[in-house]
Amino acid sequence: MKNLFGAIEAGGTKFVCAVGSGPDDLTEVRFPTTTPQETLGKALAFFAPYKGQLKSIGIGSFGPVDLQRNSPTYGFVTSTPKPGWADTEFAGVFARLFDLPVGFDTDVNGAALGEQRWGAAQGLDNFIYITMGTGIGGGVVAGGKLIHGLVHPELGHMFVPKQPDDTFAGQCPYHGDKCFEGVAAGPAIGARWGTPAHELPADHPAWDLQARYVATALASLVCSFSPQRIILGGGVMGQAHMLNSVREKTVQVLNGYIQSPAILENINEYLVLPGLGDKAGILGAMVLAEQAFDNR
Amino acid sequence: MKNLFGAIEAGGTKFVCAVGSGPDDLTEVRFPTTTPQETLGKALAFFAPYKGQLKSIGIGSFGPVDLQRNSPTYGFVTSTPKPGWADTEFAGVFARLFDLPVGFDTDVNGAALGEQRWGAAQGLDNFIYITMGTGIGGGVVAGGKLIHGLVHPELGHMFVPKQPDDTFAGQCPYHGDKCFEGVAAGPAIGARWGTPAHELPADHPAWDLQARYVATALASLVCSFSPQRIILGGGVMGQAHMLNSVREKTVQVLNGYIQSPAILENINEYLVLPGLGDKAGILGAMVLAEQAFDNR
Repeated sequence: MKNLFGAIEAGGTKFVCAVGSGPDDLTEVRFPTTTPQETLGKALAFFAPYKGQLKSIGIGSFGPVDLQRNSPTYGFVTSTPKPGWADTEFAGVFARLFDLPVGFDTDVNGAALGEQRWGAAQGLDNFIYITMGTGIGGGVVAGGKLIHGLVHPELGHMFVPKQPDDTFAGQCPYHGDKCFEGVAAGPAIGARWGTPAHELPADHPAWDLQARYVATALASLVCSFSPQRIILGGGVMGQAHMLNSVREKTVQVLNGYIQSPAILENINEYLVLPGLGDKAGILGAMVLAEQAFDNR
Repeated sequence: MKNLFGAIEAGGTKFVCAVGSGPDDLTEVRFPTTTPQETLGKALAFFAPYKGQLKSIGIGSFGPVDLQRNSPTYGFVTSTPKPGWADTEFAGVFARLFDLPVGFDTDVNGAALGEQRWGAAQGLDNFIYITMGTGIGGGVVAGGKLIHGLVHPELGHMFVPKQPDDTFAGQCPYHGDKCFEGVAAGPAIGARWGTPAHELPADHPAWDLQARYVATALASLVCSFSPQRIILGGGVMGQAHMLNSVREKTVQVLNGYIQSPAILENINEYLVLPGLGDKAGILGAMVLAEQAFDNR
């Protein structure tokens, strides 16, 4: 019999909770993220019937989160602007009530692990999972393991050159139009063009500009991390025409500097969509559960 | 008796060769990098008397280099524009002639290892060594190990926003004024102001602009790798006033986004000069030698 794990993909707008052991036997529920009390209550209620059967629980959470194991607020959501959630204990609540090992990481780090185990990064030791939607974030695996470091990567806030034809002021509260998220997250697209990103038609100039920003950011990631592959998730990449445009422009922006066949000849296998589609997050949380069980 | 290792710091302008076991017992020679035949010949001649005593040899080389162990050109300098050096076998020559394990990596990766072992990154599992001089490059340690990935990091070619008061066209042959090296390496400074960087006085406006570029690049690195420390090497940082200016501006550019005391309170310990000064490279090559011996 397979081990049964609990998994939580805790997003800023919705929670996904699941039990299972992998992509083929997932039982899941989804509900909106409201107050911590209500939302964590629903999650606890979902897992309650499985108490005694689960080996461990994994949580991939929106952030910022505290991932320093020796910190008194390890496993907390920390300084988020999301109403009610600042300084909220998360992992510890589940550990105590279920008396189980709990794996805890960012939602994007979780998704990267899911893609490594069952998706588009199988067999890779160095890759990036980046998601571009309401915000921009990413998980980075180097030498087979997630990068944590001082806090955790915040790929949305790396700085990117402004495109010369873009007069939009940007909307990162911290970095204005200087960082990737400030000019290229979904809300920035909507604000720049006065129309929500998902309503902009495929032939709108918004997408050419967007692809240039994404390509520049990806080129920077290629030069800094030297990943073996980059997986592009999130709503912005859901636009069917974006993927090829981003591939083409990334090669153009790198301009032959990185002399690797992966980029010069096989860009279609280098820049890819998530193999798990929108299941990367919840399946990644399951990998976090499994790791917590193995390291218990 | 200590193990005796051979070490080569192979720079684009000079070679350093040494034997020893660490910072306290280094015997070294330096000579200019000319043709591969002459330069490798001098290196071979330096080590020849130690044949039979050395346990292994470590090489930190200018690049690009081939680090893929299963590649037919592993251990070669590959597509460098440096006259005579393109597609030159390097590591294999020493392995065959001395019949020893040879460690091989980029010069900046080597320097990062040197700093981790004996310098400013002791005890750290996640840090960056970046050097800014004739070119800009860096070594990145994540989870305790150097990042290699597809090729190896090329930190000088990450993209940075142009400073609004800078009209210089940039001089990266691949990325013009779009990448960090194109606007901020020593030759870019010299070309922008019409005076070699090392002749510009401390109160020249060049340094304020330079510190802003460096700060922006460092802020991007903080957001992408989340390092526990960044070590700033190279001639550009040799300007005594630069370090504090870069620290101050990096905090300004991040603008409170990364809520870590390391940045908000202890920036002087977060952005530091190499603990080994200009010995980081040769001592790093010694660590490469040691690793090659341990993994033989």
